[in-house]
This record gives sequence, C-alpha cells and structure tokens, in this order.
Amino acid sequence: MITLTTDFGSSEYVGTMKGVIYSLCPKAKIVDISHSIKKFDIRHAAYILHSSASYFPKGTVHCVVVDPGVGTKRKGVIIKTKEYIYVGPDNGVFSLVGGIDKVIEIASQAKSKTFHGRDVFAPVAAKLACGAGIEEFGKEIKSIKRMIGGAKIEKNAISGEVICIDSFGNVITNICEKLVKKGKIKHNNFIDLRMKGKKHRIKFAESYGFAAKNELICLIGSAGYLEIAVNQDDAGRLLCVKGGEKVEVTKCVGC
Amino acid sequence: MITLTTDFGSSEYVGTMKGVIYSLCPKAKIVDISHSIKKFDIRHAAYILHSSASYFPKGTVHCVVVDPGVGTKRKGVIIKTKEYIYVGPDNGVFSLVGGIDKVIEIASQAKSKTFHGRDVFAPVAAKLACGAGIEEFGKEIKSIKRMIGGAKIEKNAISGEVICIDSFGNVITNICEKLVKKGKIKHNNFIDLRMKGKKHRIKFAESYGFAAKNELICLIGSAGYLEIAVNQDDAGRLLCVKGGEKVEVTKCVGC
Amino acid sequence: MITLTTDFGSSEYVGTMKGVIYSLCPKAKIVDISHSIKKFDIRHAAYILHSSASYFPKGTVHCVVVDPGVGTKRKGVIIKTKEYIYVGPDNGVFSLVGGIDKVIEIASQAKSKTFHGRDVFAPVAAKLACGAGIEEFGKEIKSIKRMIGGAKIEKNAISGEVICIDSFGNVITNICEKLVKKGKIKHNNFIDLRMKGKKHRIKFAESYGFAAKNELICLIGSAGYLEIAVNQDDAGRLLCVKGGEKVEVTKCVGC
Repeated sequence: MITLTTDFGSSEYVGTMKGVIYSLCPKAKIVDISHSIKKFDIRHAAYILHSSASYFPKGTVHCVVVDPGVGTKRKGVIIKTKEYIYVGPDNGVFSLVGGIDKVIEIASQAKSKTFHGRDVFAPVAAKLACGAGIEEFGKEIKSIKRMIGGAKIEKNAISGEVICIDSFGNVITNICEKLVKKGKIKHNNFIDLRMKGKKHRIKFAESYGFAAKNELICLIGSAGYLEIAVNQDDAGRLLCVKGGEKVEVTKCVGC
Repeated sequence: MITLTTDFGSSEYVGTMKGVIYSLCPKAKIVDISHSIKKFDIRHAAYILHSSASYFPKGTVHCVVVDPGVGTKRKGVIIKTKEYIYVGPDNGVFSLVGGIDKVIEIASQAKSKTFHGRDVFAPVAAKLACGAGIEEFGKEIKSIKRMIGGAKIEKNAISGEVICIDSFGNVITNICEKLVKKGKIKHNNFIDLRMKGKKHRIKFAESYGFAAKNELICLIGSAGYLEIAVNQDDAGRLLCVKGGEKVEVTKCVGC
Repeated sequence: MITLTTDFGSSEYVGTMKGVIYSLCPKAKIVDISHSIKKFDIRHAAYILHSSASYFPKGTVHCVVVDPGVGTKRKGVIIKTKEYIYVGPDNGVFSLVGGIDKVIEIASQAKSKTFHGRDVFAPVAAKLACGAGIEEFGKEIKSIKRMIGGAKIEKNAISGEVICIDSFGNVITNICEKLVKKGKIKHNNFIDLRMKGKKHRIKFAESYGFAAKNELICLIGSAGYLEIAVNQDDAGRLLCVKGGEKVEVTKCVGC
C-alpha cells in the first residue's frame, strides 16, 4: 500500500504519479491522504502526514510531495521506521516522524527539473511497495531535516510552537495531550496563552461545540495536539499567527 | 466494496478513514461517491446517496458521514436492504433508502467526540465488508429518522417538497417521474409551480439545453426526480428556496 | 485498468461512473487522471489526457467525459492504439492521440440524454477492461475529429497554435521540444513570439524559477511542449489568449 500526500490540488499530476506507480508495481494499492496541503506549506504537510499515517496498515509506504525546492540541491530521502516507509524531499515534511530506524538519501537522477513526484518519488515508492530494499536507492545518511521543535515544561509553563494552521483555520501547536495533563490542565480550566507578546485567556474545552460563537477556545484535536480554535471562525487569521510562532501555556490560577 | 459519502471536502479525514478501513479489511475496495456534500446538509447527502447508490454492485456497503450532531446523543445505524448495507448517523441521511429489511443501532463507543467517521463508521463498514454480520454491532431498532416526505397527487395537483439544492443550483423535488406521468404532464407542456406563496409558469423540457439563457425550466433529472433549473444560472438562489420547502405542481390548461 | 478524465469537478457523477464500472467489471482498477478539466473545455481535456496517458501501463483504457454536445448527434468512439484504448465523445478530446490503429463508432443507445458518462462510456470502458473486443460496440470509422493542428517550421519561424491555458494559467502551445531544438533555440536565448498581431520578446528558460516576478518566460513544460508562463501570475489572462490562437516563434538574433 502507498499513500500520497501532496499540494497538487485537483491537477492531473496526482493521476500521472499513479500511472507511474501502477506501471512499475501493478499490484500496488494507492490511497490519497490529501492533495490539499497548502501550496508549499511544509509544516502543514508534516502535520497532515502525522495525523493520518498511523491509521494505515503496517508496511505502508507514505509518499509526500510538497516540494518548493524541486530542482535545487535539496535531498530526496527514504525513511524507515518500525511500522512504515516514508519517501519524499528532505525539506522538513517528515519533521514529525518518530522512531526512525534508517534514512537513505535517494541517488536517482530525475529527467525533469520540475516534477520529481513523477520522476523520482513515485518510482521509488512503487519499487518499495513491490518489495525493493531501501538500500537499493542510495546511501545511508545520519539524519533528516526537522522544522518543528519539541515542546517541554519549564517551571509552570509549557513552551512549544505553532506547527501550522490547519485548513479550518485552527492553530495547531506541538503541545501534546500528555504535556497538557502533566501541566494539570483539565477540561473547563482556563489557560493563559502567550504568543507574539500578547496574553490570551482561553478555556480548555472538550470539543469545538463548547465555545460561544466567535469565542476562542483550546482543546486537544483529533491528532492529539493542543489547538486553538474559534467557533465558526478562523483562529489563525484572528490571532494573526503562522507556523513556527512560539507559544507558552500556563494554567490560570484563580480563574 | 465500500462507498464513502461525506462533507469532508478535500481534507485528510477521508484518507484517514481509508487507512482505518484497509487496516481492518485489507481486501476492501473503497470508492468515493462524493466528499463535497454541502457542510452539514443532511438532505443533500440523502439525495446524492440516492442518486448514486443503486449503480454499485449488490452487497456494497454505503458509508455516509455527514454528521452535524457528532458527539451528541444521535444514534449510529446499520441499515440492511435486499441489495446494500448502509452505515452512518441516524440523522436523516438515509431518508431516501427504500426496501429496508433491518436496522441496527450501533452500540460501539467512540474514543473521540469529534470524528466518528474514523472511530465508529469506518471500522463498522470495514468489518461488514469483510463479512461480519450486522447483528454483531448492536440491537435491532424499528425505524430510522426520515427528513424527506413522499409526494402525492390530490385532485389535479401533485404536492411534494424540495429535497435539496444540488451543487449546480438546481432545485430537486421529491416528485418522481411516475407522478409526473400520472399528472399527464408531457415534454413542452407548461406547468404551474406553487412555492412560497408564489406561482411560476415553467416549461417541462427534455433537458437543460431547451431553455433560453436565464429562463426557468423543469425536467426529470438523472436521478429520476422533477427538478427546476435555470439555463446557466442558479435556480435555488433565484427562487430563494431551500430543502424542505413545499411545492405544488399542476399542469397548465390552455398554455 | 481504466483511467477517468472529466469536467465533473467534485460532484457525485464520478462516483456513479465508478459504480457502473465495478458492477460490470468487478476486477477493474480505476484511476482518476483529473476531474478538474475546465467545464466543456475540449482542448484542455485533450492536453491533460496527452500529458498523463503515456505514464500508464500498456493496455489501460483511458475514458474521457468532457462532453458539451451530450444528447446531440456527436458520435461516441473507441480508439485503439498500440498501447492503449481510448473511450469517449468524438468531439476533439482525442486530438492529441497518435498512432491510431482503429476507430469504432459506439452504436449503443443511451437511456438518458444528459449523462452518457454513466450510460454509455462507463459501460463500454468496463467491458473493454474485462476483455471485450472493440468491434463488439459498433462499426469501424475512418477518422476522429481533431481540433488541434500540427506545428511546423517555415523559413526561420516555427508556427503553431495555443492548445489551451492550463489550470495554472500557463499558455501551452503545440510546439514540441524537437521543433524548438530544430529552431536552434537554447536556454537563455530570447525568442520573438507573435500572437494576436503583437510581438513579445521572451526568454527561453529551463524552468519557472528563472523568471523575475511578473516576467514572461517560455520553457518546455513537463508534457514536452513550449509554454509561456509568468512567474506567480496567469499568463493566459495577461496575454488575453485562448486555445486555438495562432502563434509564431522566431529566435531573436542579436538579443
């Protein structure tokens, strides 16, 4: 099984990649995760991949083509974890992949300078799905590029960053549920969120429906991260925030 | 075979559901009917399902996730007909399913409050596609929620209602071709359509091309229902009408 | 394997066609090339099909439904080449198909006047994918309708035409890479492009990134044709040009 995550939208590029894959590995089963990654938004791709990949059967090859640097010197990589194989550009789209066993830099030469999805990543994914070993495609390298840091608790504050704004405008942070629990923040508690030098006092709720219209709330989203949402509006736009922004969360005492 | 009909648009939620299905039933064949149901538009989902479902092979599991009440007390159901199995929320999306043999209320508990497509309906559909019996998932209930009434002829008038506005702006009614024939309305006849207290005199045509630009026409659409269309424009907006609106059709005498 | 190329967008029509195909040929593998052909844009369909079809396995049935003349007297055709079988309306969508062995006019009668994708082309494609011979569907005809001419070199000028404007606004011509080489135009040369009575002096570049913002450039696109692009803008709109427009390219001497 091969999954595809790209920013190709509804163009024919996805179909062409599938043609290449089926030509090389007729028995492949191809599943689209999303082709609506925001154009060139590497952090958004990393998040979407992270929130979907683990629901696929063991052995699935996850192929990602969000590749603003196509044609430049950025590497192409194959990443092996216990469960999955990942294929795509080494530009940060695999920032949230954990438990890495091995990374291979893809040595193959592309015939085009503009469409490595078709010319490099689809062929590699197809051959991997049909049983090729990852070592056949190049030499091992030590690490991949990571664009998203880890969150941690210092004193009473949880510090982290915004991973991305999702397609509904929710501000997704890298603060996972475990950290929120460690911070002793419970449903209906209020938190103080510092971001861009401003402080926002926000209720930590169980789900979106617990906020009044236009009210900011925060909650653990379906991928397991703390996110800031606005009922029926776009929190990313309202807070004027982008991926990478630092955030600091403290439980509000006496709220 | 499993079909998916959702209002998830181009988000990754569809891909995640597919991952869940393939994990539980690797041999499943998944076909997308539409993921462009208007957000939360239960009637639109009912219509789209109705217009596509019967073209699928016998035994297909039709899974629908248009679910504004997710996390509330609305039931999840499995519906068995002679030809198909339907899985989804019991909120009216199955209003146009006929020939029902049995209905099961799904007993399973979801781990999330926001994504029963992934946590409830996809697993149930997968297991059904791989041979599970519908009784394994809960207890039989007597009936499902229906949001769309039947049309009928009284005196000389056919009375019915608007099912929904389709994605082209056509106003789809629940008046089927048979009733139109019973009403002795033939191509190129004019009809009087009463709706929202107003009367519209409209030609009953064979297809869209028979109307002048911006002219209202009515015709039997590809799903077999009387619909009101405007050549190259949006009839729903022009007539300012929504799903559920009552309509009354009479053949115009002397037109 | 069957590919689908349509202008159905995200409507349920695609799903319905898949239901029909799987009902008639359960073992078919269906791949979407694109459903975002510009509404009724036959030339766009011809280009997209051309740029993707050859990446599919030999024997693939390519089914195209961009069909503004549905219900009129336009023919339906099956085209056999050495590699593929093509199915769809004979309205020009197969203009760029080369190496044709045989053309069959589809004799089957559609039950609807509005949806031959479901009622004619999907069933034919399904039966072909499951082994039917093309002769079973009608009589041989001599030729298909072609809407796109060939390009050629006369004196020092390459004359051709615009195939279509692609979904990124790039102006795709029918001048292939071989002709550009014959015309001795090399990367970083300037060309004079005559179109609509105007002359444009444009750099011939290796890829999009070599143009300044808003600057016109031309390059060989991923389908192998000369195209005119504007970095981060819509060249078709800027040049106010449509499919079919004549173009004349000469190498700029002394630029």
